[in-house]
Amino acid sequence: MSASASNSNKERVFIFDTTLRDGEQSPGATMTLEEKLQVAETLDDMGVDIIEAGFPIASNGDFEAVVAVAKQVKNATVAGLARAISADIDRAGEAVRHARKGRIHTFVSTSPIHLAHQMKKTEDEVIEIIARTVAQARNLVDDVEWSAMDATRTPLDFLKRCVDTAIKAGATTINLPDTVGYAVPEEHFRMFKTIIESVPNADKAIFSVHCHDDLGMAVANSLAGVAGGARQIECTINGLGERAGNAALEEVVMALRTRGDAMPFFTEIDSTQLSRASRVVSAASNFPVQYNKAIVGKNAFAHESGIHQDGMLKNAETYEIMTPASVGIKETTLVMGKHSGRAAFKDKLKELGYELGDNAFQEAFQRFKDLADRKKHVYDADIIALVDDEVGSVGDRIKLVDMEVVSKTGGTHKCNLVVTIDGEETSVSYEGTGSVDAIFNAIKTVSGQNPHLVLYAVDGVTGGTDAQASAHVRLEMNGRIASGNAAEPDTLVASARAYLNALNRVMIERGAAAQGALAG
Amino acid sequence: MSASASNSNKERVFIFDTTLRDGEQSPGATMTLEEKLQVAETLDDMGVDIIEAGFPIASNGDFEAVVAVAKQVKNATVAGLARAISADIDRAGEAVRHARKGRIHTFVSTSPIHLAHQMKKTEDEVIEIIARTVAQARNLVDDVEWSAMDATRTPLDFLKRCVDTAIKAGATTINLPDTVGYAVPEEHFRMFKTIIESVPNADKAIFSVHCHDDLGMAVANSLAGVAGGARQIECTINGLGERAGNAALEEVVMALRTRGDAMPFFTEIDSTQLSRASRVVSAASNFPVQYNKAIVGKNAFAHESGIHQDGMLKNAETYEIMTPASVGIKETTLVMGKHSGRAAFKDKLKELGYELGDNAFQEAFQRFKDLADRKKHVYDADIIALVDDEVGSVGDRIKLVDMEVVSKTGGTHKCNLVVTIDGEETSVSYEGTGSVDAIFNAIKTVSGQNPHLVLYAVDGVTGGTDAQASAHVRLEMNGRIASGNAAEPDTLVASARAYLNALNRVMIERGAAAQGALAG
Repeated sequence: MSASASNSNKERVFIFDTTLRDGEQSPGATMTLEEKLQVAETLDDMGVDIIEAGFPIASNGDFEAVVAVAKQVKNATVAGLARAISADIDRAGEAVRHARKGRIHTFVSTSPIHLAHQMKKTEDEVIEIIARTVAQARNLVDDVEWSAMDATRTPLDFLKRCVDTAIKAGATTINLPDTVGYAVPEEHFRMFKTIIESVPNADKAIFSVHCHDDLGMAVANSLAGVAGGARQIECTINGLGERAGNAALEEVVMALRTRGDAMPFFTEIDSTQLSRASRVVSAASNFPVQYNKAIVGKNAFAHESGIHQDGMLKNAETYEIMTPASVGIKETTLVMGKHSGRAAFKDKLKELGYELGDNAFQEAFQRFKDLADRKKHVYDADIIALVDDEVGSVGDRIKLVDMEVVSKTGGTHKCNLVVTIDGEETSVSYEGTGSVDAIFNAIKTVSGQNPHLVLYAVDGVTGGTDAQASAHVRLEMNGRIASGNAAEPDTLVASARAYLNALNRVMIERGAAAQGALAG
Repeated sequence: MSASASNSNKERVFIFDTTLRDGEQSPGATMTLEEKLQVAETLDDMGVDIIEAGFPIASNGDFEAVVAVAKQVKNATVAGLARAISADIDRAGEAVRHARKGRIHTFVSTSPIHLAHQMKKTEDEVIEIIARTVAQARNLVDDVEWSAMDATRTPLDFLKRCVDTAIKAGATTINLPDTVGYAVPEEHFRMFKTIIESVPNADKAIFSVHCHDDLGMAVANSLAGVAGGARQIECTINGLGERAGNAALEEVVMALRTRGDAMPFFTEIDSTQLSRASRVVSAASNFPVQYNKAIVGKNAFAHESGIHQDGMLKNAETYEIMTPASVGIKETTLVMGKHSGRAAFKDKLKELGYELGDNAFQEAFQRFKDLADRKKHVYDADIIALVDDEVGSVGDRIKLVDMEVVSKTGGTHKCNLVVTIDGEETSVSYEGTGSVDAIFNAIKTVSGQNPHLVLYAVDGVTGGTDAQASAHVRLEMNGRIASGNAAEPDTLVASARAYLNALNRVMIERGAAAQGALAG
C-alpha cells in the first residue's frame, strides 16, 4: 500500500526520457538551447537512464543542442534520433560521440499502412533497410536502439522478422512504439510477450515501450508492455509530446513505486525531484500543467470534500496513496523580502532545487533585490519565475527601455514605447483596441516585423495581487515558432517583455532542414 | 481502425457523468447555479445517460441546484448523492423527485482502513447499514445506486456480502469505486469479474466503475471494469474531479468508439459535441485544459513534425486514428464583423452549438454589435466567450462604470475607478505595484471588501492581437470561493470585470452546511 520498502525482489526498468525530442516536437513547445540544457540537467540529476536530446539531422540548431547536452550530461546515456537514412545516422553518431555514453536511435516504419502510403516499400525492402542501417549505426557506437514505427499496427509475423533482423545487425534496444496512440493494455501486453517469446535472440536486447495518450491510456499501456517483458519505458515530463503527448514520466514512475505489490519492478528515479522537473519543463515549453494532472497538477494532492478532509485528519492513508513529500512538494516556508541577504537567497535557491554558477547567481540576486524593492513579499513562486526567466535574455536585438500605457474604458488604449534596436534608441506611439493590443502593435511597428501571435496568456504566479504576473507569448514568423516568458509585478510590462523575448527568438535564423520528425 | 460502422454486435455501456458532483468538488471548481444548468443542458443534449447533479444535503445551494437540474433535464436520469444517513437519503429523494427520471445514489465505506479509522464500525454493522439505507432509498424512488466507497481496497469476500445485501435491499446499480486512484487494470478487471460471477443476484443490477486518475490509469481501469462486466462508467468532462480527477468522459467514449474492434461495447454519446462540452465545462469551472490533453486539448489533433505532416498529406490514416470532426472540431470559417446581421449571428450561434431564448439572444446580439464596433473581426472564439460570459451577470451589487489606468515602466501604476454600489456611484484612485494590482486594490478599497485572490489568469482567446482577452479571477472570502470570467478587447477591462464578477458572487451568502462530500 505504501511505497516499496525494498527493491530486492524486483526487476529494474530503465527510464528513457524524450521530453527534448518527442516533447519539444509538440506544436508550440520549441525550446531554446539554454532551456534544453536546463531540462537535461534536471533529468540527469533525477536519475533518468537515457535522455533523448534531439534529432541531429533536423537542423544545425538541433545538432548543436544534442552536442551541448551530450557534453553536459554526467550520468545518463544521451541518445540522438535518426531516420533509416545513411546521412541521418552519421549525423547522429557525430553528435552523440561527445557524450560519456552515447546512443544512436534509428527507426523505420513497419506497418502496412505506412509501407503502402508513406514509404512505398515492400516488406523485403524494409528488412534490408533495417539490416543495413542498424549495422551502420553499430559501426559508430556500441549502443544502438532500433524502433519499429507504428509497431502496434504491424502484423506480428512481420514485426518478428524486423526485430530479429535488427538484433542480428547489432541493436541493443528494441523499441515497439504505439505511434498513433491506438493500443489497449491487454493487446499491448500480448504484443511484447509474443515478440519476446518468439524472437530467437530476444535476450540480447532490452525491449522498450513508447506510448502516446490519444485515447488516455499511455501510462497503462506502458506498464502493460513492462508486464509483457519490456524493461525500458519512453516517456516525457508532464506527458509532453506530439498530439495528446507521451506517457508522463512522473505517472509511470509513481505508479511503479506506489503499486510495487502488483508490479514487481523499480526505477532509479529520485521521485522527490518530480515536482521541480515538472515546473522546469512547463516553463521551458510554455505548456501549463492542468490543475487535475496526476502527480504534478496543483490539485493532485488537494482534498476539498468534508468527508475526505475528515478522513485525512484521522489517518492520511484513508485517502492518500502517495505523500506529497514523495514527489517533492514542500510547504512554502520562508517568505523573502528586501532585507534578505545573499546567504538567505542562496539557501532559498538551494531549497528550491537551484544551484547557480557565480555569474548567474549574481544576476539572479540583483533581479531579486530589484523585485524586493518593488514588492513587499517575495514568494517561492516569484523566485522560481525569476530564475527560470534569467536564461535566454542574452543577445537580444530589441530591448525595452521605457513604456507608458494609458487605458480608458470606452476610450482609447495608447502605448508610448521606447526600445533599442541593435543598440540604437527609437520610440513609437500606438493606439489599439486594448492595452495589450496597443503594446504588441507598438512593438511590431517599431521593429518593422510582422509575426503572427499564436498564444498570449498571463498567470498570476502567487496568491495575492502583490505578486508577479508571468506572461507567455508565442509568435510565428516565416514558418518558425518561438516563445517568450517574462515575470514582472506589472502585467503590461510582463506582456511587453514576453513579446520582445519571443520576437528576439523568432528573428534568429535556424537551419531549415527537415524540422522535426519522430520515432514514436 | 476507423469508427465503428455498426453497434449491432455490441453491448451498451451507460455513461454516468459526475462533473457537477465529483467534478465541482475539486478545490476551486465551484460553479454557480447558472453554470451548473448550462453544463447539465450540454450533458443532456450530448446523450449522457445519468447526470449526477450534486449532493443535496451538503447545503441549500446544492439542494436547489439538484432541484433546478432535475426540472430542466429532458432525457437523462438525474441522480443526487447521499451518505448512508437517513436525513441524507430523504433530502436526496426530495431533490430528485422533480426529475422525469430520478435516482438516489447512496454510499458507504467498505475498506478495512475506512472502517477502522473513519467510521469505527464492524463489518456486520456496515452490512446492517447497507440493508437499511438502500431499502429506505428504494421506498422513495425505483432507481437506487449503491456505492462501496474504497471498493478497490476492500477484501473480495466482504465486498461480495455488501453487494449481495445492497441488491437484495433493492439497489438497481452497484458502483465499485476506486476512490483513491489505486487500481491497475488487470486487478480492476478481476474485481468486477469475481464479484459479478459470485454474487447470486448480480444479474438484477447494473455494475458501475468509478475511477480516479492519481496514477494516470483512470481510463484504462474504467475499460478494464467494463471488460470485467460493468456496464456503467462514471466519468467527468475534462477529467475534472477530486485530486487528479476522474476518468475523462471524452477519453472513455472515444476509446470505445475508436477501438470497437478490441472492445465490443458502445455508448449513446454524440461524440461531435465533446469539443463544445469541454469548453463549456472549462469556462464554468475555470480549469484550463492542457494543450496535450487527449481528445479535447488544442494539440490533440495537431501534427508538427515533418514526417507526420508528410504522412498526413499522403493518407490521414497513417497518423490519425480519429478525425477532428468526430469530436466536433471544425475549421473556423465565417468571420463576423459589424455588418453581420441578426440572421447571420443566429446562424453562427447555431453552428457553434448555441440555441438561445429570445431575451438571451437579444442581449448576446447587442454585445456582439458593441464588440464589432470596437474590433474589425469577430472570431468564433470571441462569440463563444461572449455567450458563455452572458450568464451570471444578473443582480450584481457592484458594477463598473468607468476606469482609467496609467502605467509606466519604473514608475507608478495608477487606476482611477468609477463604480456603482447598489446603484450609488462612487469613485477611487489607487497606485499599485502593477496595473492589475492597482485595479484590484482600487476595487477592494471602493467596495470595502477584502477577499483573498486565489487565481488570476488571462488567455488571448483568438489568434491575433485584435482579439478578446478572457480574464479569470477566483476569490476566497470567509471560507467561500467564487470565480469570475470576462471577455473584452482590453486585458485591463477584462481583468476588472472578472474581478467584479467574482466579488459579486462571493458576497452572496450560501448555505453553510457540510459543503462537499463524495462517494468515489
